Amino acid sequence: MMNFEQSERSLAWMERVRAFMDAHIIPAIPTYHAQAAAIDRWTEIPPVFEELKARAKAEGLWNFFMPPSDHDDEYFTSPGLTNLEYAPIAELMGRVSFASEVFNCMAPDTGNFEVLHRYGTPAQKERFMLPLRDGVTRSAFLMTEPAVASSDARNIQTAIRRDGDHYVINGRKWWSSGAGHPKCDFFVLMGKTDPDAAAYHQQSMILVPRDMPGVTLVRHLPVFGYDHAPHGHFEVLLEDVRVPAENMLLGEGRGFEIAQGRLGPGRIHHTMRNIATMEVALEKMCRRLLTRRTFGKTIAEHSVWEERIARARCEIEMARLLCLKAAHMMDTVGNKAARAEIAMIKIAAPKMAQQIVDDAIQAHGGAGVTDDFGLAELWANTRIVRLTDGPDEVHERQLARMELDKYRAELAA
Amino acid sequence: MMNFEQSERSLAWMERVRAFMDAHIIPAIPTYHAQAAAIDRWTEIPPVFEELKARAKAEGLWNFFMPPSDHDDEYFTSPGLTNLEYAPIAELMGRVSFASEVFNCMAPDTGNFEVLHRYGTPAQKERFMLPLRDGVTRSAFLMTEPAVASSDARNIQTAIRRDGDHYVINGRKWWSSGAGHPKCDFFVLMGKTDPDAAAYHQQSMILVPRDMPGVTLVRHLPVFGYDHAPHGHFEVLLEDVRVPAENMLLGEGRGFEIAQGRLGPGRIHHTMRNIATMEVALEKMCRRLLTRRTFGKTIAEHSVWEERIARARCEIEMARLLCLKAAHMMDTVGNKAARAEIAMIKIAAPKMAQQIVDDAIQAHGGAGVTDDFGLAELWANTRIVRLTDGPDEVHERQLARMELDKYRAELAA
Amino acid sequence: MMNFEQSERSLAWMERVRAFMDAHIIPAIPTYHAQAAAIDRWTEIPPVFEELKARAKAEGLWNFFMPPSDHDDEYFTSPGLTNLEYAPIAELMGRVSFASEVFNCMAPDTGNFEVLHRYGTPAQKERFMLPLRDGVTRSAFLMTEPAVASSDARNIQTAIRRDGDHYVINGRKWWSSGAGHPKCDFFVLMGKTDPDAAAYHQQSMILVPRDMPGVTLVRHLPVFGYDHAPHGHFEVLLEDVRVPAENMLLGEGRGFEIAQGRLGPGRIHHTMRNIATMEVALEKMCRRLLTRRTFGKTIAEHSVWEERIARARCEIEMARLLCLKAAHMMDTVGNKAARAEIAMIKIAAPKMAQQIVDDAIQAHGGAGVTDDFGLAELWANTRIVRLTDGPDEVHERQLARMELDKYRAELAA
Amino acid sequence: MMNFEQSERSLAWMERVRAFMDAHIIPAIPTYHAQAAAIDRWTEIPPVFEELKARAKAEGLWNFFMPPSDHDDEYFTSPGLTNLEYAPIAELMGRVSFASEVFNCMAPDTGNFEVLHRYGTPAQKERFMLPLRDGVTRSAFLMTEPAVASSDARNIQTAIRRDGDHYVINGRKWWSSGAGHPKCDFFVLMGKTDPDAAAYHQQSMILVPRDMPGVTLVRHLPVFGYDHAPHGHFEVLLEDVRVPAENMLLGEGRGFEIAQGRLGPGRIHHTMRNIATMEVALEKMCRRLLTRRTFGKTIAEHSVWEERIARARCEIEMARLLCLKAAHMMDTVGNKAARAEIAMIKIAAPKMAQQIVDDAIQAHGGAGVTDDFGLAELWANTRIVRLTDGPDEVHERQLARMELDKYRAELAA
Repeated sequence: MMNFEQSERSLAWMERVRAFMDAHIIPAIPTYHAQAAAIDRWTEIPPVFEELKARAKAEGLWNFFMPPSDHDDEYFTSPGLTNLEYAPIAELMGRVSFASEVFNCMAPDTGNFEVLHRYGTPAQKERFMLPLRDGVTRSAFLMTEPAVASSDARNIQTAIRRDGDHYVINGRKWWSSGAGHPKCDFFVLMGKTDPDAAAYHQQSMILVPRDMPGVTLVRHLPVFGYDHAPHGHFEVLLEDVRVPAENMLLGEGRGFEIAQGRLGPGRIHHTMRNIATMEVALEKMCRRLLTRRTFGKTIAEHSVWEERIARARCEIEMARLLCLKAAHMMDTVGNKAARAEIAMIKIAAPKMAQQIVDDAIQAHGGAGVTDDFGLAELWANTRIVRLTDGPDEVHERQLARMELDKYRAELAA
Repeated sequence: MMNFEQSERSLAWMERVRAFMDAHIIPAIPTYHAQAAAIDRWTEIPPVFEELKARAKAEGLWNFFMPPSDHDDEYFTSPGLTNLEYAPIAELMGRVSFASEVFNCMAPDTGNFEVLHRYGTPAQKERFMLPLRDGVTRSAFLMTEPAVASSDARNIQTAIRRDGDHYVINGRKWWSSGAGHPKCDFFVLMGKTDPDAAAYHQQSMILVPRDMPGVTLVRHLPVFGYDHAPHGHFEVLLEDVRVPAENMLLGEGRGFEIAQGRLGPGRIHHTMRNIATMEVALEKMCRRLLTRRTFGKTIAEHSVWEERIARARCEIEMARLLCLKAAHMMDTVGNKAARAEIAMIKIAAPKMAQQIVDDAIQAHGGAGVTDDFGLAELWANTRIVRLTDGPDEVHERQLARMELDKYRAELAA
Repeated sequence: MMNFEQSERSLAWMERVRAFMDAHIIPAIPTYHAQAAAIDRWTEIPPVFEELKARAKAEGLWNFFMPPSDHDDEYFTSPGLTNLEYAPIAELMGRVSFASEVFNCMAPDTGNFEVLHRYGTPAQKERFMLPLRDGVTRSAFLMTEPAVASSDARNIQTAIRRDGDHYVINGRKWWSSGAGHPKCDFFVLMGKTDPDAAAYHQQSMILVPRDMPGVTLVRHLPVFGYDHAPHGHFEVLLEDVRVPAENMLLGEGRGFEIAQGRLGPGRIHHTMRNIATMEVALEKMCRRLLTRRTFGKTIAEHSVWEERIARARCEIEMARLLCLKAAHMMDTVGNKAARAEIAMIKIAAPKMAQQIVDDAIQAHGGAGVTDDFGLAELWANTRIVRLTDGPDEVHERQLARMELDKYRAELAA
Repeated sequence: MMNFEQSERSLAWMERVRAFMDAHIIPAIPTYHAQAAAIDRWTEIPPVFEELKARAKAEGLWNFFMPPSDHDDEYFTSPGLTNLEYAPIAELMGRVSFASEVFNCMAPDTGNFEVLHRYGTPAQKERFMLPLRDGVTRSAFLMTEPAVASSDARNIQTAIRRDGDHYVINGRKWWSSGAGHPKCDFFVLMGKTDPDAAAYHQQSMILVPRDMPGVTLVRHLPVFGYDHAPHGHFEVLLEDVRVPAENMLLGEGRGFEIAQGRLGPGRIHHTMRNIATMEVALEKMCRRLLTRRTFGKTIAEHSVWEERIARARCEIEMARLLCLKAAHMMDTVGNKAARAEIAMIKIAAPKMAQQIVDDAIQAHGGAGVTDDFGLAELWANTRIVRLTDGPDEVHERQLARMELDKYRAELAA
């Protein structure tokens, strides 16, 4: 029966995460930034970050992003939080830029981990998944390519050619997030094994150790002037990269199938972080407006801001509910049946977040575009969400077609 | 624990209402309009409507809008549907303009009925509530005034002056919806008993039989060219209208207190009808786009429409969830604690509905602004929702202030 | 050299029109409405209107919409106002719904008159144009059809078949504005003479006297509940309507060619009336906001309205300048070279007007949707402009393609 | 008489600037960026830039931003381009980020130069204006302060206290653009000389050599991750900075008076650069859409992009016309009478530009947020325009009040 309160299990985990963040992460933010400013952020990690991570692991606040799974085995047992139960925790972590990683719950490792857990062979799990599970390594996901509109994934051109007991990979990827992280160990790469197969069976996914000969990190890609080190986004060149045939995931031609399953939970996590962003921005906006005065009153008393605050609050509440419903459907009827809802949150939340952060910037005047309140970087991070995992237009197309399909048959009759 | 499925009870009522609508109401729509075209709509009711109403009453599909109540007595026993359980039924009924009234679940009678059920004396209930309960009479709610900005309800000027064992009422009201209905029996009127009292204790609510000497229906108010007969919206002049002192509701100066309680469920009903409107408009839009062709393809294949359909679907889902959450909060923590959520749906849903109906009109070309598809009238009905029960700006102000209040104390410290 | 002041000639005409409106039209508005309320508006004309028209004609304020023309002949000599000079006068007249017609400068007669002036044979001019010139008759333009998406004009299906020295017309038109006017004398009709010709040479235009056998006014089409009598918009059925072959305009297959030329000036006139609408709405909004108080101040002091007023003023100024520039280009380089600018004003102004009138309605509260301030009817009139002469989407498509064409050749190279 | 063609003089200068840009500046862009990448951008200037500047000066393409002036003297003779004539040249230069400075036509030096030209004493001109005129030095304008909402300029707190034949300045400024440029020679600083004077007579402007003891450049302020070196935006601390009394501009208490005059032409320049930004973004958007394919066609053929391109083209044309009209009014009736139009372009153009650049980013997918197409930096530069010289809200307030003032007196009567 309809209910809007979280489960006991979720509330208990939320409480633990919140307590950890209040006690350890939030107080460490200044230290984190000070240490980051003093090191080469592309090759070193701020020591306080490693301490936080070790502490979270020791307290068992670790890898809890994994939904209940029938793929549990000796390598990993899911902690059992459903997508619906995990979602509010993702929001909680989303309030601090580096918090997810403290708990080993960060993209793209979560998606790659789930792929390995679900589809990996024992050998693949041992080699790639275990170090990821333990937070010893990180990984990247190589899909988008600079030469084509990757929003139509069938456009992807990177070639994966069988050669004896190896595959030889040639291509150029970009927006390979995390590929340059000092701990990055391997890539999950999507590429074309058979250009002559049916449209959705040409692509495969394969595991590529980062340090293979032929792999070149061409450059990192800035996002509105921010570098996002040490994670970053990279352009990666693959020239005659030879990986063992056993690195193929699931089988040739099954790349789309894996991609489908991989994206659902990630969309929930992304959206809940979007929602955290909106909450952070709205809070900062309110605080600023209450403490600055123009024309004889606080700016908060100018009704043009009432309209913006009210809209922000409405949108946050609506987006959160929709995301939770999508998570609930994934848990109860499966990712495929939840396809429309997953598309909806991908469409709706980033646009809302972009507007709310923009309003928060406006409320801060010049301070809004500097790094003083974190809003400019938040804006940049928010803006890319309308492009990652497919631009708005692709999801709108998909959702509209599902809507139209409700009437097509009847009208054709 | 969080759940997005309706209760068994709600599903059962939904099923009954849906079956009744499919079997009786929807097939009767052409007859209803044909009969309406042939009568004086201000004084007569289409016979088919009375038949539908009698049938619904006979089947017990009657007055089920009332939430569980500790005010039950010999005059009325609540059927026990919570606000959350009733909400999807309100949406169902909202798909046909006259359906709510078939089930005796139409505004403003629902609100007036609830006021009487909660605050009425036995005598008031016998005289006013029982015929309303039985669908024999209808009623109106007289609050807004043409001479002042009623969005600030303290502006209301109509005088209610005590004179012996009567009250004498003088003032001019408008947007008195239903005041001209052939069955309208009485008004719940808000007016000022004590201009010298504290701001929120000047106003009272009193019961005024429509046929009292001194009551004049000045004119009906069109809404974008529509008259909304037989219900309609009226300008009502009250000149030295003398009503017995026992018609006062709850006590002098308690008008705001009653208004507060009265509005909550009504907002849920209104919003769920908005959502029905959006669904109807989106369905019509999709059907039209699939059946018209320009430039070598159906209009549905032009991606500018994909964006609009996708946005519509996202907004409908989000608005519905927020409304259901507001209803759930009213049921569980009370109307006062749900104040923010109630404001949110009042702000968010009508704007969305306005846009979606406007898009549907655009999709129909010239046909959209005629009466052929009902979209123009739907638009008019939708547009007024941004003004009824207070314009957007008043609710945005209220919601923004609640948001700002979260930080005020801390910042003042 | 760039200059933003109107010519002496335009200023002099503006002054005459303004003086006439101030002296005669504006004072007559109440009489006009009172008389209209007392007659059958579909068959009778308010007497005051005929008086105003006679007076305007006597004063020589008549037919001045016609730009300088090399088609001048014994039937008509253009008064010589360029499109640029006429535009501000169109705005002036646009402030009162019936003013254009007082000066014999109303659509669709202006467009039909220009077609006849430019392409008509002497016989066609004598029969159709002269009474129009003298304000004795009115006319309609029959293009749009209910059965197809007329936004792609190639879809038009009405058949014009040669039969000896006649043409036989069969089809169904709608949105035939003015077809039901008591003085309507003839239609300019677009239809298909040769379904096998190249796409843009299938259609022709032909003159059809209204009272021909086989012409049926099926019904009038309401616009958001308004009937727009006596002008109105009609659905017209043509069944085996036989007109003499000499009624063909310009020649078979030249319908698109005529339509192209016909639309330019009309778009300027429509847009300038849109601008008048925006000015009227903004003025009413400001006046209302200054005279109502909420929460201790006039509503005008709530900054949410400052934003709307400011946006309205910016948009009005920008739309007017763009329209004047389009008019200037039509005058100097021709309608074809001004194609982009004409599309731009058709796209931009109606959307702006819709928003500004909507804001004005919101500013008036419930009064905004009634007939008390004329805003609801203004809204309805504004909304249809986004559909008449092709919906927004068609003009956006056309304009975007012109923009893209700037780069196509180079990129293809 | 109204005309939309530029004057011969303007066209001739446009042609010279365009030719210079085509021949020298545009080919030098890669060299400029390569050199910039190899130096300390805060202390060194790319050599190619100095070469371009020397060449432009030698060709007499220098300081032509100054409108005709009765302040001409032995120090400077205005080249005589009106604001209207200069505007399209500002747009031309605005297409390349560093082009204005090549021609010595860059903010804030243009404004400071004009202040000195108009109000400077001979001594002030010799010391400060001549090197600026010759491109030997640069300058900054110190107004905004971090501690107050500077959008209400009366809030400005920096103290300018008379002490014998000196003024002593104490305060903290920020957004002091150009203060850190290696050639920055002096500041025009606004501060409070008399806190007890009437509200608009408390502030004064004074000339402060940058290298004065007590002046500290605290830090540079990033804009969405970009540093804007070597120009940059700075936080500047002034501690007991003693400047000679003769550095006062115009006289104590006349700061607002100078500010008023200073801002007009700058707004034209800024807006024309906004328009250049929109044109650049639209061109890049079109090119990208034409060269990428999804779902079987170029993205340009997806109609969702037609709508965006069309809107962009409409807005660019409208904004440009409004800006030219504002410039024309400044030239013909003066900055004060053009106050409304100047506010309008400040309100309208930056919002449009923000949307168009955002759309262009979306059209480029991931490439849009990197530095590959310059769009991300363009977005950042565009976003701050909604905050510089007062946020949108302040100008909307001012414009709305002018609009409301049209009716106030009449309604009060």
